[in-house]
Amino acid sequence: MSTASLSLLEQRFAKLRANKLFELSVIAIIVFSALIIGVKTYPLPAWTQPVIVGLDWAITLFFLVEITIRFLGDPSKRTFFKNAWNVFDTLIVVVSLIPIEDSELALIGRLVRIFRVLRMVSIIPELRTLITSLLVALPQLGYVMLMMFIIFYIYAAVGATFFAAINPELWGDIAISMLTLFRVMTFEDWTDVMYETMSVYPLSWAYYLSFIFLSAFAFLNMIIGIVVNVLEGEHKKIAAAEAEAAGEPTLQDLKAELAEIKSLLQARSETPQ
Amino acid sequence: MSTASLSLLEQRFAKLRANKLFELSVIAIIVFSALIIGVKTYPLPAWTQPVIVGLDWAITLFFLVEITIRFLGDPSKRTFFKNAWNVFDTLIVVVSLIPIEDSELALIGRLVRIFRVLRMVSIIPELRTLITSLLVALPQLGYVMLMMFIIFYIYAAVGATFFAAINPELWGDIAISMLTLFRVMTFEDWTDVMYETMSVYPLSWAYYLSFIFLSAFAFLNMIIGIVVNVLEGEHKKIAAAEAEAAGEPTLQDLKAELAEIKSLLQARSETPQ
Amino acid sequence: MSTASLSLLEQRFAKLRANKLFELSVIAIIVFSALIIGVKTYPLPAWTQPVIVGLDWAITLFFLVEITIRFLGDPSKRTFFKNAWNVFDTLIVVVSLIPIEDSELALIGRLVRIFRVLRMVSIIPELRTLITSLLVALPQLGYVMLMMFIIFYIYAAVGATFFAAINPELWGDIAISMLTLFRVMTFEDWTDVMYETMSVYPLSWAYYLSFIFLSAFAFLNMIIGIVVNVLEGEHKKIAAAEAEAAGEPTLQDLKAELAEIKSLLQARSETPQ
Amino acid sequence: MSTASLSLLEQRFAKLRANKLFELSVIAIIVFSALIIGVKTYPLPAWTQPVIVGLDWAITLFFLVEITIRFLGDPSKRTFFKNAWNVFDTLIVVVSLIPIEDSELALIGRLVRIFRVLRMVSIIPELRTLITSLLVALPQLGYVMLMMFIIFYIYAAVGATFFAAINPELWGDIAISMLTLFRVMTFEDWTDVMYETMSVYPLSWAYYLSFIFLSAFAFLNMIIGIVVNVLEGEHKKIAAAEAEAAGEPTLQDLKAELAEIKSLLQARSETPQ
Repeated sequence: MSTASLSLLEQRFAKLRANKLFELSVIAIIVFSALIIGVKTYPLPAWTQPVIVGLDWAITLFFLVEITIRFLGDPSKRTFFKNAWNVFDTLIVVVSLIPIEDSELALIGRLVRIFRVLRMVSIIPELRTLITSLLVALPQLGYVMLMMFIIFYIYAAVGATFFAAINPELWGDIAISMLTLFRVMTFEDWTDVMYETMSVYPLSWAYYLSFIFLSAFAFLNMIIGIVVNVLEGEHKKIAAAEAEAAGEPTLQDLKAELAEIKSLLQARSETPQ
Repeated sequence: MSTASLSLLEQRFAKLRANKLFELSVIAIIVFSALIIGVKTYPLPAWTQPVIVGLDWAITLFFLVEITIRFLGDPSKRTFFKNAWNVFDTLIVVVSLIPIEDSELALIGRLVRIFRVLRMVSIIPELRTLITSLLVALPQLGYVMLMMFIIFYIYAAVGATFFAAINPELWGDIAISMLTLFRVMTFEDWTDVMYETMSVYPLSWAYYLSFIFLSAFAFLNMIIGIVVNVLEGEHKKIAAAEAEAAGEPTLQDLKAELAEIKSLLQARSETPQ
Repeated sequence: MSTASLSLLEQRFAKLRANKLFELSVIAIIVFSALIIGVKTYPLPAWTQPVIVGLDWAITLFFLVEITIRFLGDPSKRTFFKNAWNVFDTLIVVVSLIPIEDSELALIGRLVRIFRVLRMVSIIPELRTLITSLLVALPQLGYVMLMMFIIFYIYAAVGATFFAAINPELWGDIAISMLTLFRVMTFEDWTDVMYETMSVYPLSWAYYLSFIFLSAFAFLNMIIGIVVNVLEGEHKKIAAAEAEAAGEPTLQDLKAELAEIKSLLQARSETPQ
Repeated sequence: MSTASLSLLEQRFAKLRANKLFELSVIAIIVFSALIIGVKTYPLPAWTQPVIVGLDWAITLFFLVEITIRFLGDPSKRTFFKNAWNVFDTLIVVVSLIPIEDSELALIGRLVRIFRVLRMVSIIPELRTLITSLLVALPQLGYVMLMMFIIFYIYAAVGATFFAAINPELWGDIAISMLTLFRVMTFEDWTDVMYETMSVYPLSWAYYLSFIFLSAFAFLNMIIGIVVNVLEGEHKKIAAAEAEAAGEPTLQDLKAELAEIKSLLQARSETPQ
């Protein structure tokens, strides 16, 4: 194939990619594959089994064709896989191609078919933005989350040290203790956990109450951090939009104007009249 | 009936509609019908049965008369049913007219009598505004709700695939799984659900914790979205009110003023003195 | 007693009232009475019984003397009982004087002794402000609370109509149903309630989910309403404080200044030079 | 040792303290000690026992050396122990030196080893700031917390007085009653508590509902107080940053400018031309 015909193909695919109808049909297929996943969880008559397998392969093939078109239609093939969403889409499609008869891989095969629903996120820009905003917000919360982890770790160590003998299923080791503390934090039957240890250590209510207060404070800190970030971002956006769009003069403009007037006046004062 | 007498009737009804006393008596009858609905849920002596049926018919008739007055008193009868609240009121009254002896329709008859309490919302403007603000806010939250639905759907598919054999009552199919996940999201005995699956898949705590974090994040996003919307709306209202009411000069005004002064000065500089 | 000596007494009492030491000793007695109430809930040896009764009477007498001083020291005795806090204090003291031997009134006597702790609120201005701010905020939330009540009432009526036969303890009548719905709203074992009705009406999950969404929306509306109110109040306070304290010139001032300059210029243009 | 050599030592230690590598190795040792604490909660083969004891002593020694370097490297030894974090670090290390064979002190010894993880907070400045912000926020919330305590105390007194006979485990005395009320506030199986007392006092639902509303209001007040504080702090920071960094002229500057122009004009009006 000559480079010219390749480039022609690229242009055609690029046009296809940008086509609204192409996008809608991809979304339709994703929704359809999601429905099949849902239907499979119900008890089905035996004859539907081959139908579903057939549909599954058809969907996989469609996705393979689609991703190929996307790749071939991309002007810069080198940066195609630098986009995390493209990598994700390709991975989902490639792993779908593995036959799922093998019992070892059957698990992964089934999971991948479910994760195909996530392609919805990669194809709708607004959902992609939502995820991006989550990933952007996470590092800002880094220290609060570290603080929370330290609180959990210390309380879990104390819990595993003193309460392991009382109920090993809840306090057996530090990992289980952290799970139990998360349960306490969600207030899920936390008094049952407390009453049990209070029968041995009557003062252990202080352990639970201080943990609830500390974790609630850290959690609150996290929420407020997010809210303040979001509100600040909004304020900046509004301020910028107002300033730019309306062509509103700033105090700086007014000052320049005043300086000009003053120099005019001064110039006249100095010139002989 | 001549058109003139009809128009006279319309004017009279329009006057009646706007009458404060008429409105208050409608509200009183709605409250009264709500009380009857409440009273009916208690065990009552047999002789009250015909009394309640009679009162019920009286209320239905009153509402029928009231809606007729509203309709006849409306200057533009064509747009009357474009108002969703009018449609709702009429529907409630019309369905109330169906006799409830029929066991098939008895259910709907009883429900409609309860829904008559909702006429309170259609008659008090402040409550109508509350509902409208809810309906206005919903589409803005569309993408976050779609995201949440995708999260629920994927986790429910995974849950129905792997946990259905452990407890079919909680994970039998994708619909039941979504209900179970909603339960987990409200922290309602979620550890019971988790401990059950952890006895088969010891690592399934990761499934629950990741779900809780993701759904909490999406939920938080939704709340923040609403709060930011509300605050922005408030800020705009305040800013507009301040600017308009106080007749506060803007920077734009000041700039115009300055430009005028400058031109005055320049004009004088140029004229021979 | 002559009017002069009465007025002298009033002045003395007014002085005593304003005395910091007097206030502190009242607070100390309130704390002491609270401690006695706490101690009484523990099993005590028999000989403490008369001691506690004695202390109780001493406290009652102290409060009686204190309220008398307050009343006599008040310059305008007519407005004394227009202050709700004074009425509350007097009521608590007067009811305390009723002997509690009578088994009928014993209940009220004991409750009043507990409510004496509330005098803490009436004596510390900051706590009084907190309560006032609560009472001020309530009517603003009136319509949202009415909306919430309507939601509760309708759902309770539906619940009492359809689920009463399933579990009369939860859905027996409209009042019990409202309590059950409040329980559902706090997510307290709400799935137990739901699973029970779902065994008869498989679609009743829609009843619970729609109720949770609607009440959560109304609740959220209430919270946002309060937050917006508080933030607005804060903004206004800040803005007012900035403007007043700093003596910051407003745009209005600048405009006046500019108008003056312009008139100066125009005057000179018109005068022959 | 001469003063000169001491001062030389101080300089060396001060340099070492500020060394990034030194800091990182301290963090690494803290993480390592945390891991050992975690590992100890798992069942371990017998031969690991002496290894862990050895590592424990090595860590204690390392911390002892580190704190000595910090102390000797501090230019002003008198203020070293005025810093609460230094006191905390020293205390942790000193108590770690006590041998834990003694069964009486074994408990404290084990706890101190766990609390060593908290040194993470004292060494990472960002975490230290988080804790400081918590301690700074607390007194501002003082009155709301006092209000909450009064609410809890009164309700607990009422609960202990009337419900103690129903279930002494929940309402036995005022302390247990306060714990039960905290449980009710977290909505943890609160209906079980309520149904139990409602079987004796059918109207006791009012007790629980009013408590939930009052404590929720006080809690909400607390949250809003924190949020408003945080947002105000942020606004001030932003405003200050904008004003200073951008060198933006203020309205004050403009007014001064205008005054100057006016005086120029007036001067000219007065001078004979």
